[in-house]
Amino acid sequence: MTVLVTGADGYVGWPTALRLARRLDERVVGVDNLARRDWVEDVGSVSAVPVDDPETRYAAEPNLSFVYADLADRDEVQQLLDVHEPHTVVHAAAQPSAPYSQINGERALYTQRNNLSMNVNLLHGLKDAGLDDTHFIETTTTGVYGAPEFPIPEGGATMENQGERDDVPFPAMGGSWYHVTKSFDNANARLANTQWDQPVSDLRTAIVYGTETDETEELGLPTRFDFDYYFGTVVNRFCAQAVAGYPLTVYGKGEQRKPMVGLRDTVESIATLVEDGHDGEGVDVYNQVTRPVAIVELAETIQEVGEEFDLDVEITHVENPREEDEEHQMEMENERFEELVGEPQSLEAGVRDVLTTLTRHRDRITAREDRFLPEVLLD
Amino acid sequence: MTVLVTGADGYVGWPTALRLARRLDERVVGVDNLARRDWVEDVGSVSAVPVDDPETRYAAEPNLSFVYADLADRDEVQQLLDVHEPHTVVHAAAQPSAPYSQINGERALYTQRNNLSMNVNLLHGLKDAGLDDTHFIETTTTGVYGAPEFPIPEGGATMENQGERDDVPFPAMGGSWYHVTKSFDNANARLANTQWDQPVSDLRTAIVYGTETDETEELGLPTRFDFDYYFGTVVNRFCAQAVAGYPLTVYGKGEQRKPMVGLRDTVESIATLVEDGHDGEGVDVYNQVTRPVAIVELAETIQEVGEEFDLDVEITHVENPREEDEEHQMEMENERFEELVGEPQSLEAGVRDVLTTLTRHRDRITAREDRFLPEVLLD
Repeated sequence: MTVLVTGADGYVGWPTALRLARRLDERVVGVDNLARRDWVEDVGSVSAVPVDDPETRYAAEPNLSFVYADLADRDEVQQLLDVHEPHTVVHAAAQPSAPYSQINGERALYTQRNNLSMNVNLLHGLKDAGLDDTHFIETTTTGVYGAPEFPIPEGGATMENQGERDDVPFPAMGGSWYHVTKSFDNANARLANTQWDQPVSDLRTAIVYGTETDETEELGLPTRFDFDYYFGTVVNRFCAQAVAGYPLTVYGKGEQRKPMVGLRDTVESIATLVEDGHDGEGVDVYNQVTRPVAIVELAETIQEVGEEFDLDVEITHVENPREEDEEHQMEMENERFEELVGEPQSLEAGVRDVLTTLTRHRDRITAREDRFLPEVLLD
Repeated sequence: MTVLVTGADGYVGWPTALRLARRLDERVVGVDNLARRDWVEDVGSVSAVPVDDPETRYAAEPNLSFVYADLADRDEVQQLLDVHEPHTVVHAAAQPSAPYSQINGERALYTQRNNLSMNVNLLHGLKDAGLDDTHFIETTTTGVYGAPEFPIPEGGATMENQGERDDVPFPAMGGSWYHVTKSFDNANARLANTQWDQPVSDLRTAIVYGTETDETEELGLPTRFDFDYYFGTVVNRFCAQAVAGYPLTVYGKGEQRKPMVGLRDTVESIATLVEDGHDGEGVDVYNQVTRPVAIVELAETIQEVGEEFDLDVEITHVENPREEDEEHQMEMENERFEELVGEPQSLEAGVRDVLTTLTRHRDRITAREDRFLPEVLLD
């Protein structure tokens, strides 16, 4: 019995593989091509937390193993699935940065081809390996939802025209060349489910923040932590800015709410879903989100918790470069996710986690603090 | 002033390029990599109508020219756009066969990578060439709609959850690895429109039938006509079966209605849209459909018109291999399309067109009549 975790060198993938290895009496195979390390180097940054090589990480538990493979390559995927015959695939591999995908046409094309190819190869690979009972879990993004003026369902919704109605999947509302790839993957996973009954779960992951999980702490094998404009999500980047003594720049009023989730809860929900197995017959959608948080509330929380670390955090409001509703409330159903995770970590506790870690690595951050902003000359 | 037509060697692309060259006092540049010829050969079939090489076709009018290029290659696209600076791009290039995309994982991956790459390269290429005023017209498919239980809008629709509502784009409901690519392209075109105001029109093309247009007839330069299981659409394939004395096989009751449109109207609507230009500010959606037709009505029309050609057309009902509602009515709004095309050709007249052409090429069809059915051993 094997669980395959893709993107197993990544921010979410590594702690997930580690928790699964600890919790399950099974082999956990992590696969990655280490591309994330290259992308971050490509934008001139580093992980704030120094991370070990996969060889060191994957020696941590006897039932963990690591395979270097490029999932955009069909043959490599097929070989991997044929050999390991996983009963569950946690697909957490992707070029996951919206700003990176927005740099230029080359990065947009790379992002879309890379993410799409991995998804197609895994889905068809499962079928061709005779693994059509394998639970395919993909971590996608709440970014597929855009910012509609109704509470976002956990799954499809009702569409209406001329007074008649039907339930439909959620449309592709993502605002970047990255975000839409996760809608593409959704559509493909639905095909695998309708055409050959592949059990599929779609974890729509919110903005993840955090540094440690119980296992990474205990073993001293941390996950990476990006804080640059391209790969640092807003919570993590703001915390790094706070530690570097750099003001937190809030776009406009900052009352627009963004869905967020802690790393600990992200990992726990995936592990529970792997243990519990596929819930229904169709594509199960989970909104992997604790709650939407206003950007200004986030900044103020970091300011407040920062005092415990003797950080004097400044908040500045700048003109919003984005066209967005600065008061968008982003209501999002998450009952199914809550069942997976139990009592979630508070934003305050998550920020405390992050600041605890980052204050130990202040020098690595201040050495790259110019990376907080986009490099317009990047090509 | 130049119009660029992609897929310019294809079934719709060639007669479209020809009509534009005749109608406009401008250069019309057709681009293609001739892949369709390879795909049809790959499935062991041929065009029922012998077709000329692009060199011969594109010598027909002084303002027509042809470029051999692979649009999945970023550099080739950029060069093409930089050199020709089109004010309108008609993007009719694609691997357009659902059954071909369903053959196996390799074909699925190829179809998705090919179609997606072309779309990304054209959209970003326009931006990078400084052609963000160029009207980008893509022929997609009514297959993006699936078969919902409400009249299909010509554009987005209203989504509702917990009593609140908003207008959203149509979700990806396509049922094949090909069909969903057109939803991917829709999402990308929306990004180009929202991010840098690229004028975009999305012609959602129904099942096209027909052989000739006024120009192909007059010049004796016909478009291709596929009748095999993979590349022959249902109307054209049924007509070929009728000519070959092969029974028309209706799946189940055959009362399910499918959206259809004649080739003459398809070409005319594109030409009008090129002339008229982009209509609004957003992404203009047109349902390029005359009307939905029940499969059994289609078969009976061919049977009836067949009598004029001394064809004794047999209709057989076989068990439906597909999971579909055999009475789905497929209501579809098409007011915007009708404004482009005026009085459409009737199905009966279209079938008469096709049978007139095909009875001249009966031998080419009967030589390949085993191609009406899927080749299960194809790999």
